[in-house]
Amino acid sequence: MNKRLVVKLLGGLLALEALLMLPAVAVALCYGESIFCFLQVILVMLAIGVPVWFLVKPDVKNLNARDGLAIAGISWLLMSFFGCLPFVFSGSIPSLADAFFETVSGFTTTGATILEDVECLPKGILFWRSFTHWIGGMGVLVLTLAILPKLSGRTSHLAKAETPGPTFSKLAPRMGDTAKILYMIYGALTLLEFIALVIAGMPVYDALIHAVSTAGTGGFSCRNASIGAYSPLIQWVVAVFMLLFGVNFAIYFHMIRKEWSGIAKNEELWIYLIIIVLGTFGIALNTLPQTGSFGDSLRQGFFNINTVMSTTGFGVCDISIWPIFARVLMVVLMVGGACAGSTAGGLKLSRIIMLFKSCVREVRRMISPRKVSVVRMEGKAVEESTLGTLGLYLAIYVVILLLGSIAVSLDPMEGNNISVSFTSTLSCISNVGPYMGSAAGASGCFAGFSVPVKLLFSIIMLAGRLEFFPMLALLSPTLWKKY
Amino acid sequence: MNKRLVVKLLGGLLALEALLMLPAVAVALCYGESIFCFLQVILVMLAIGVPVWFLVKPDVKNLNARDGLAIAGISWLLMSFFGCLPFVFSGSIPSLADAFFETVSGFTTTGATILEDVECLPKGILFWRSFTHWIGGMGVLVLTLAILPKLSGRTSHLAKAETPGPTFSKLAPRMGDTAKILYMIYGALTLLEFIALVIAGMPVYDALIHAVSTAGTGGFSCRNASIGAYSPLIQWVVAVFMLLFGVNFAIYFHMIRKEWSGIAKNEELWIYLIIIVLGTFGIALNTLPQTGSFGDSLRQGFFNINTVMSTTGFGVCDISIWPIFARVLMVVLMVGGACAGSTAGGLKLSRIIMLFKSCVREVRRMISPRKVSVVRMEGKAVEESTLGTLGLYLAIYVVILLLGSIAVSLDPMEGNNISVSFTSTLSCISNVGPYMGSAAGASGCFAGFSVPVKLLFSIIMLAGRLEFFPMLALLSPTLWKKY
Repeated sequence: MNKRLVVKLLGGLLALEALLMLPAVAVALCYGESIFCFLQVILVMLAIGVPVWFLVKPDVKNLNARDGLAIAGISWLLMSFFGCLPFVFSGSIPSLADAFFETVSGFTTTGATILEDVECLPKGILFWRSFTHWIGGMGVLVLTLAILPKLSGRTSHLAKAETPGPTFSKLAPRMGDTAKILYMIYGALTLLEFIALVIAGMPVYDALIHAVSTAGTGGFSCRNASIGAYSPLIQWVVAVFMLLFGVNFAIYFHMIRKEWSGIAKNEELWIYLIIIVLGTFGIALNTLPQTGSFGDSLRQGFFNINTVMSTTGFGVCDISIWPIFARVLMVVLMVGGACAGSTAGGLKLSRIIMLFKSCVREVRRMISPRKVSVVRMEGKAVEESTLGTLGLYLAIYVVILLLGSIAVSLDPMEGNNISVSFTSTLSCISNVGPYMGSAAGASGCFAGFSVPVKLLFSIIMLAGRLEFFPMLALLSPTLWKKY
Repeated sequence: MNKRLVVKLLGGLLALEALLMLPAVAVALCYGESIFCFLQVILVMLAIGVPVWFLVKPDVKNLNARDGLAIAGISWLLMSFFGCLPFVFSGSIPSLADAFFETVSGFTTTGATILEDVECLPKGILFWRSFTHWIGGMGVLVLTLAILPKLSGRTSHLAKAETPGPTFSKLAPRMGDTAKILYMIYGALTLLEFIALVIAGMPVYDALIHAVSTAGTGGFSCRNASIGAYSPLIQWVVAVFMLLFGVNFAIYFHMIRKEWSGIAKNEELWIYLIIIVLGTFGIALNTLPQTGSFGDSLRQGFFNINTVMSTTGFGVCDISIWPIFARVLMVVLMVGGACAGSTAGGLKLSRIIMLFKSCVREVRRMISPRKVSVVRMEGKAVEESTLGTLGLYLAIYVVILLLGSIAVSLDPMEGNNISVSFTSTLSCISNVGPYMGSAAGASGCFAGFSVPVKLLFSIIMLAGRLEFFPMLALLSPTLWKKY
């Protein structure tokens, strides 16, 4: 890789992260809390980042694929490390391993927490915790591209390495403009949710926290009961916005430009909506005997379908007492995730659709070996190299899930069982948050796991968020060689 | 497809199945049991099969890929239907759905049973039940090729559609000779196990049952306690033979021809053996506090590792009381299976190895996009089309597992839970047999499931045994068109 260029950019990212901590400082000031824990970290990040950014002179100007992978892999580790320091310095999460887990969970928009009681924490710290979701949701490298137009020479590798989904669709000819459009849509939707929540009766601070948490499809709340602490109206609002943040952002771009045909032929969107409708009614009917009210069942069904499909992980009710069908459905949907190009995790529906079409083609090919055909998505032929990577992506996903579950099963934690081992790993790899089968309760708190397992989960969450390849690339000696 | 040719062959297969029932008739006669239930079915099969075989004149002589898929898919359904009739006519399994499930489980070498008490059944019926494992293990189409040299013109499609593994390796230039060699090795190993079991002190009838059940890596026993009913020495013998039947039969062919280099560079074999050794010691150490004896732990560990890896499904102890690690390991190994070209089910290790190598190549390609490289197995380059199919294979496996689990979760059976829904489906798709989490007991009897779920399981077992594509091809309208 081009070491100087990579180091320079990493320095810039560190300085950027310092700036991204300022909103949390502002929140802390508003509530008269100590801002010392933030200032320490901000100063350290600026002291390292600014000189590196301005003083390191790279030999080359353009980033290649190798540099993109390296920057994505290293920067997320680096950001998580510095991002966790305010938790440690403030004493909110004294253990470094716990704080690192919590911050990785934040940036990767997983929302898995080691905190059993969040309501006792300072408001500034809680805001930073949720704000990491917002930063990680759309991606800090994409943000860099949006605010640093100078970089937009050949920087598509940066965005590709960080943005979820099997393919990356440029919305504008220049990568910097694409990034700007994405962040503008992202910001506008977040603001819209904030306003909607306040109108629905949520306190302003809580609305802020939940707006940024929903936007990144993260799941950190400022209440121990999560969204279950609020009124049914608020629960509907949050559910609708979880749905919206699980949609490919290109769809909103099409909507702004009134390109309705692009939306109409987006198969992923329609399948996403169909699954939500069917899943909602399926769960509603299945849980009806328990709640006794169709309205409640419908609300809980709609909320929970969206919380797993968008991989947000907010909760409104104890799903551990649900009938088996509803719970199995939740576990299965954890694998799928929502649309590519959204802030959601999981495999992404477009991958599943492409795999399905490839299977149909394979059967056709076996029956009539001489026929040649292509797989189409939204009317366009998908490149064979993209199709080839899909299966590998699934294989890595399955292998990490299985080996991770074996490792977690070795944790002597009280209440650990087969269900906990599998679903906690699944939840981390898909960036969902809660898991099933916990004896501790429905929320599935990660506090009880041992330190090695928490570190393993952190790596799995990062691998899931970056869609494996940047993390795997870090393991390759070739990456570290001079290009 | 070439309908006449397909129908003619299906007729032949039916007549062949009638002949394959004769050993069971002999066993029944030895024990003075009624053979009426068998004779009825044999006569019907001969009455249909023989005229069809001799009277239908096909237009073409050579089978194409389409015909191979169609014959594999239809013949396994047909064989299972006629094969289940003796159970119904004898009154041993009065329900047709139950008998069909049991027979499919037999032919697919799954070994999942709906019988809660097998010891009360007639000996002839029990022999037929286990003998279906032996027939299905190596495959009835391969048997056809072995005994009908006339067919061996262009019949590789038949063997390919039925033989497990990502690729089919011919052991001799003519397909008929390959099939003969395979069946000779299969028969010799079965005989060897029979002799070993008798020497180890197992009664002759029991040795016969367990020799054919192990050979097909099936799992049907004539004792309710499975192999747990016998001495530790017998348990070791069965475990060793489960290991041997999980090895690619080409290895034995190499051994006979003293081609040691072919064995030395067979990566799949070595990885298989390494997993068995590590898994055995892992389980032995993990369960040591429970058994209190390292010898017992080692025997139980070795037996159970082999019973899941070879996907046989015999039991020697109640694994539901095992520590979590050992149980999670058992579930994960259910996915993997043993070697390609053996009688075992699951994904097969060579698929996993190829997927792993493809992933390494993909990461290398991302880092250095201009480098071209091939994936090698046993020193030979693997075709790109084979690699492309691997990911699809995994995708179909995962989708059937997830959708199957959702369907099973709807079964109102008492004791159904998340663990039962997932592991029973997993067990069927990998052709293992028992499942985890059953409240009823360690053996995981399938008696309690509803009729629709039993039929679903039957389809899933067939799909898993035939490695999906022949069953999927039956769903394609193109298959049924005239070629």
